[in-house]
Amino acid sequence: MAGSHKSNLILRIEQKKARVGIIGLGYVGLPLMLRCCEMGYPVIGFDLDQNKIKKLCQGKSYIEYIPSEVIQANLSKFEATFDFSRAAEADVLILCVPTPLNKYREPDLSFIVKTMESVLPYLRAGQMVCLESTTYPGTTDEELAPRIQSRGLIIGQEVFLLFSPERIDPGNLQFSAHNIPKVCGGFTPNCLEVGVKFYSHIIDKVVPVSSTRVAELTKILENIHRAVNIGLVNEMKIVADKMGIDIHEAIAAAATKPFGFIPYQPGPGLGGHCIPIDPFYLTWKAREYGVHTRFIELAGEINAAMPNYVVSKIIFALNSKHKAVKQSRILILGIAYKKNIDDSRESPSIVIMEKLHQLGAQLSYSDPHIPVFPKIHDTIFDLSSTSLNAEALKQYDCVVLATDHDLFDYQLIKKSAQLIVDCRGRYSEAHDSIIKA
Amino acid sequence: MAGSHKSNLILRIEQKKARVGIIGLGYVGLPLMLRCCEMGYPVIGFDLDQNKIKKLCQGKSYIEYIPSEVIQANLSKFEATFDFSRAAEADVLILCVPTPLNKYREPDLSFIVKTMESVLPYLRAGQMVCLESTTYPGTTDEELAPRIQSRGLIIGQEVFLLFSPERIDPGNLQFSAHNIPKVCGGFTPNCLEVGVKFYSHIIDKVVPVSSTRVAELTKILENIHRAVNIGLVNEMKIVADKMGIDIHEAIAAAATKPFGFIPYQPGPGLGGHCIPIDPFYLTWKAREYGVHTRFIELAGEINAAMPNYVVSKIIFALNSKHKAVKQSRILILGIAYKKNIDDSRESPSIVIMEKLHQLGAQLSYSDPHIPVFPKIHDTIFDLSSTSLNAEALKQYDCVVLATDHDLFDYQLIKKSAQLIVDCRGRYSEAHDSIIKA
Repeated sequence: MAGSHKSNLILRIEQKKARVGIIGLGYVGLPLMLRCCEMGYPVIGFDLDQNKIKKLCQGKSYIEYIPSEVIQANLSKFEATFDFSRAAEADVLILCVPTPLNKYREPDLSFIVKTMESVLPYLRAGQMVCLESTTYPGTTDEELAPRIQSRGLIIGQEVFLLFSPERIDPGNLQFSAHNIPKVCGGFTPNCLEVGVKFYSHIIDKVVPVSSTRVAELTKILENIHRAVNIGLVNEMKIVADKMGIDIHEAIAAAATKPFGFIPYQPGPGLGGHCIPIDPFYLTWKAREYGVHTRFIELAGEINAAMPNYVVSKIIFALNSKHKAVKQSRILILGIAYKKNIDDSRESPSIVIMEKLHQLGAQLSYSDPHIPVFPKIHDTIFDLSSTSLNAEALKQYDCVVLATDHDLFDYQLIKKSAQLIVDCRGRYSEAHDSIIKA
Repeated sequence: MAGSHKSNLILRIEQKKARVGIIGLGYVGLPLMLRCCEMGYPVIGFDLDQNKIKKLCQGKSYIEYIPSEVIQANLSKFEATFDFSRAAEADVLILCVPTPLNKYREPDLSFIVKTMESVLPYLRAGQMVCLESTTYPGTTDEELAPRIQSRGLIIGQEVFLLFSPERIDPGNLQFSAHNIPKVCGGFTPNCLEVGVKFYSHIIDKVVPVSSTRVAELTKILENIHRAVNIGLVNEMKIVADKMGIDIHEAIAAAATKPFGFIPYQPGPGLGGHCIPIDPFYLTWKAREYGVHTRFIELAGEINAAMPNYVVSKIIFALNSKHKAVKQSRILILGIAYKKNIDDSRESPSIVIMEKLHQLGAQLSYSDPHIPVFPKIHDTIFDLSSTSLNAEALKQYDCVVLATDHDLFDYQLIKKSAQLIVDCRGRYSEAHDSIIKA
């Protein structure tokens, strides 16, 4: 009987008859859904946000780097719904839901748990269930497996449970869902077998590992690596600045070493929904085992302090022009958390704006990717993106280059602005009115 | 007149008439000397160690990965001497001397200062002087320049002073002196011009930077990057071990990500004369500016604690076999600080041996690259490398894989040893008698 569920499901996957249910249609779920469509699988996309469902059904995208044309091209291959009872129709269920931190900076698994409980009544023998959300080692085994088992379903015989982390890098044009190798860990060897079969049809390369915990740690290691290396260069930036050395020049020179060194760029702080958040999932879980994650905590501390560093550079820069922050007109260039994307979640630009607002600055911002200041932030800013021209730029007491979008006209900014605080090392030459931050 | 010294020296470099003096003929100076010979420059090699001079003059190498044949092939192109007065004959003087830490873990510049003072009486107009030793930003400007100027020589007009860090990776067969890009910073633009000209004849790619300080920071950044990333994976190893996860499997899986992640391998601690030492040069210098280098200090702390971690794993492993460390026969595999080289400086294996000795273990070691236990270590060990065979391996209560040389027969070790403590993730399978450390 076990063999029959597994082999039936594998057969349906191979014949492209398996219906794929993707839960959570954000930066991770939407590209995955489109990829499944392109590879010939019928897809049901689930989301609680009726606005997203509506847009998808109209063939419209809500993520800047995913063109509406791609959605329209696949319109006949997917359905989008907020009706979770339809999970019963899916052979493969993939959870792509957020894993944020709560206000005590502890893991908030509520999206995973609520999603699982919403689909639980509709689970049935013959389904594969895979979690893609970044989380601490043990989540799949401790949070998902017992809930599935509570329905009387036998994992590895009737239901096939996996963890396979998403590795999407928004705005990366070279690597997207299909050509980023996919790490897969199964609750049992049968689970892994089914999972590898499925993803092999969707993604160029699948990397099986020996357990869900290894797969969970793998993803979190990647993000810890990034958070720590960015923390390190941010600390080095502060040291180099004191020594009168341009850290960007030294990093570029170090990057010419053909082995053993990878350049990371300092900036005004960490942003996005992954790097500043995910590492603390491991920190929290490690406490259960009586161990500490000191690199993660140090990186968090240093990266979180960078907006203050930038604000102090702005204060010094204005001071050199005999001005206070209070009532100075300050323009923030770029409120997205990284270049060339439209996502301002956890963006250090927002933190810098809030701090400058508290000091009495008159704030404006310009971001070609974010025309209106997003309502998701708990702030008082009712702003639209300012368009940049020489006349407009001249009016500001200080222009802060926070996110170095390619769409900015850097020559124009340099020529027109009275004073620039450059958080991205974009202006390498020494100049009285360009302050490196 | 300034132009004439510079253009004369450049002409001599271009015509390969410039005589190159290399001071310090160790892991850095010796390969550089041979490269200069191969590129057609007459070379004088200087070293205080008369034994090295004697060997070189006999065409013998004293570094395992540099074959004596290479020295013999260049015997007519170099002279080796301990007579520093001959520095006057050199047009290009390159300092490749050690930069260790003193017992308070502060920079010990005595080799640089003594070398400079030894050659100072023989400096003359028309020479280039370049420091290659890893050191803190400011060393060239603060320690070398004033000494040269004290001779009445004008830097940038008569003498051309540079910092250009060595980037040698002993045992790396892919990259050696000639094909590792060479970062160059000059005391003045003229100095840089001369230095770039010289190194362009020796090395495939030269990377000019704007100052000696940038060049100094560049090299130290590379080693900090390495020390911190190794510290991070060592901390992650401890966390993963507590969670029952094999860190090596997770690192290998993470390494399949085609961007944003570079694998570093955990181990029994840091060794060698670079990675554990150089970062603290920056730590020391940063204090002068009132700033801290917390990542460096955390990495130092965690990496330095790894030998203790290994010892505790050995204690637990022996305990599981009802044995104490006292009077147990323990074999250490590999005392070089990294694989496939013959250098045991700062090797964690030595620290582990000292700790086990204090606990009363009966120690042996095996290292195909180091036949006799080096006298450089302040220890009581009067040992020779044990050759490995099934019979010999069976006799030990515990075999500790400390350095994973390719020359070891891992199948034989696994088959014959009673108990293995594996510090290198060489044995991935679960096994009662193989303990991961």
